[in-house]
Amino acid sequence: MQALVLTPQGPRFQSDRPRPQAAEEALIRLDLGGICATDLELCKGYMGFLGVLGHEWVGTVEQAPDPAWVGRRVVGEINAACGACETCRAGRPTHCPHRTVLGIQGRDGAFAQWLRLPVGNLHAVPEGVPDEAAVFVEPLAAACRILEQVHLRPSQRVVVLGLGRLGQLCARVLALSGAQVFGVARSAASRAHLPRSVVAVPADQAADLPLADVVVDCTGAPEGLRLATARVRPGGTLVLKTTVHHPEALAPTPWVIDEITVIGSRCGPFAPALRLLAAGAVDPRDLITARYPLARGVEALAQAAQPGAFKVLLAP
Amino acid sequence: MQALVLTPQGPRFQSDRPRPQAAEEALIRLDLGGICATDLELCKGYMGFLGVLGHEWVGTVEQAPDPAWVGRRVVGEINAACGACETCRAGRPTHCPHRTVLGIQGRDGAFAQWLRLPVGNLHAVPEGVPDEAAVFVEPLAAACRILEQVHLRPSQRVVVLGLGRLGQLCARVLALSGAQVFGVARSAASRAHLPRSVVAVPADQAADLPLADVVVDCTGAPEGLRLATARVRPGGTLVLKTTVHHPEALAPTPWVIDEITVIGSRCGPFAPALRLLAAGAVDPRDLITARYPLARGVEALAQAAQPGAFKVLLAP
Repeated sequence: MQALVLTPQGPRFQSDRPRPQAAEEALIRLDLGGICATDLELCKGYMGFLGVLGHEWVGTVEQAPDPAWVGRRVVGEINAACGACETCRAGRPTHCPHRTVLGIQGRDGAFAQWLRLPVGNLHAVPEGVPDEAAVFVEPLAAACRILEQVHLRPSQRVVVLGLGRLGQLCARVLALSGAQVFGVARSAASRAHLPRSVVAVPADQAADLPLADVVVDCTGAPEGLRLATARVRPGGTLVLKTTVHHPEALAPTPWVIDEITVIGSRCGPFAPALRLLAAGAVDPRDLITARYPLARGVEALAQAAQPGAFKVLLAP
Repeated sequence: MQALVLTPQGPRFQSDRPRPQAAEEALIRLDLGGICATDLELCKGYMGFLGVLGHEWVGTVEQAPDPAWVGRRVVGEINAACGACETCRAGRPTHCPHRTVLGIQGRDGAFAQWLRLPVGNLHAVPEGVPDEAAVFVEPLAAACRILEQVHLRPSQRVVVLGLGRLGQLCARVLALSGAQVFGVARSAASRAHLPRSVVAVPADQAADLPLADVVVDCTGAPEGLRLATARVRPGGTLVLKTTVHHPEALAPTPWVIDEITVIGSRCGPFAPALRLLAAGAVDPRDLITARYPLARGVEALAQAAQPGAFKVLLAP
């Protein structure tokens, strides 16, 4: 089959990759994939991953242990947990120490004609949600994850630092709470993508903002945590949504004196993300920058790495 | 009056310090003071403070705007807030940007024959609590602060790293929750001070402990946060109780991947600390290493800085 594969020599298109053996899992035909900043970090060596890239996707089930799934259009959670260890039994399967992660850790990803995942990871996509919106479910779930971790009050102030792929989705989801959300970015084009519910702030004016109750670092930049620390009020909360391969190291003294809470935030719940898409409360399709066939996947990765690029899609 | 004063040349005993003018505040005669690690950090230059040292104390009110306070034995919260700014009105007076802090920031401290504080900061000491226990209220309140910030479940595992003055109190308070508390320290003498409710663990065996739901860094060491990060489970909570003048800088990547929550924790509520002392649920008096007159305050600071020293007291 065709696949976009991260090799020791970098990302390569391969047309002769063996089709995955579904075994006890579902075999899914890819309809659409989306390139994420994590894919670009993986290409730089993050996590040491090698194999088929891709963890944002929508597809159609071709084989499954439970035939009720066959033919359904689905998205899928990316962490495949063991289900048996202490962490899984405690209800934290996304942190299972034995987990594999689609296209990130120990498991081939979605940028291929077919992928496989456990049936338990799948979510059916409601009819009214087009592929071009459904392909955003994974990062939209990651945005929803913030509200699983932080009790954001409607009367509070939020600053989202960085308005790339993930920052745009975080700002949109957080604004639905009724909180006053400020989106900070250097790029005028990024700011122009914000919906009316988010106040656009140029990065060089962020210092004039009142300190926020919650600051979300979506910069994907080494200095992100330092900038976020400067914008949060005493007793406030910093949410770290992005990882970089070489982050700037920071001393924790200000967090103690100002009693800041710093929360690492990763993968989120798919069901609320699908509900927001189905209701039209979030429509991410304006964030699609380009669409490439798998065969031009290397080119697509390069475009996704360009400044000003939001979501670059891949289709078989 | 006599006072232990941090001067640009270091801590000095002075016998001719002017007695504080109480004005709208209470004037309090010191009965007993306690030396804290923060005092030692201040002497190294932390916060740039100069003036009378000391923020752990018990004393007797001599003058007050409300005469009902006169003659009462009291302890006092150390942050004097403006009461009028946005932070104060939001119910976070300990973070008032205009605050002064007893013996730490913009306000002479307690290691003197007399001190002054706003009446609103005072708490009467119950009769059954001796001075030698009441002098621990401020750090005991700081230990209680953890439970204001973290919902510690009785079924959870806690690791307290560092069993100095504050670590001992944190371990004792957290163990009252019913949680399984492990106290980690290099020093056998520190471990020997733990009550039966806390499991003593030598520092070189900490790596064998199961990962904890909550890890409290009381090491006061530059590497504390890194060691704490290594001992917490995915999705768990790190509480930072100590500041050091030159902490080790840390990259936040593991907190994102493992969705760790890092919480800076500072001053705590006096009322529960007094209740725990009055009930005998915590008795800190075994932590008293020595007692000095104010006139030998410089010597007392030196002893408090020695390895193996816990609480060194000062009496007028």
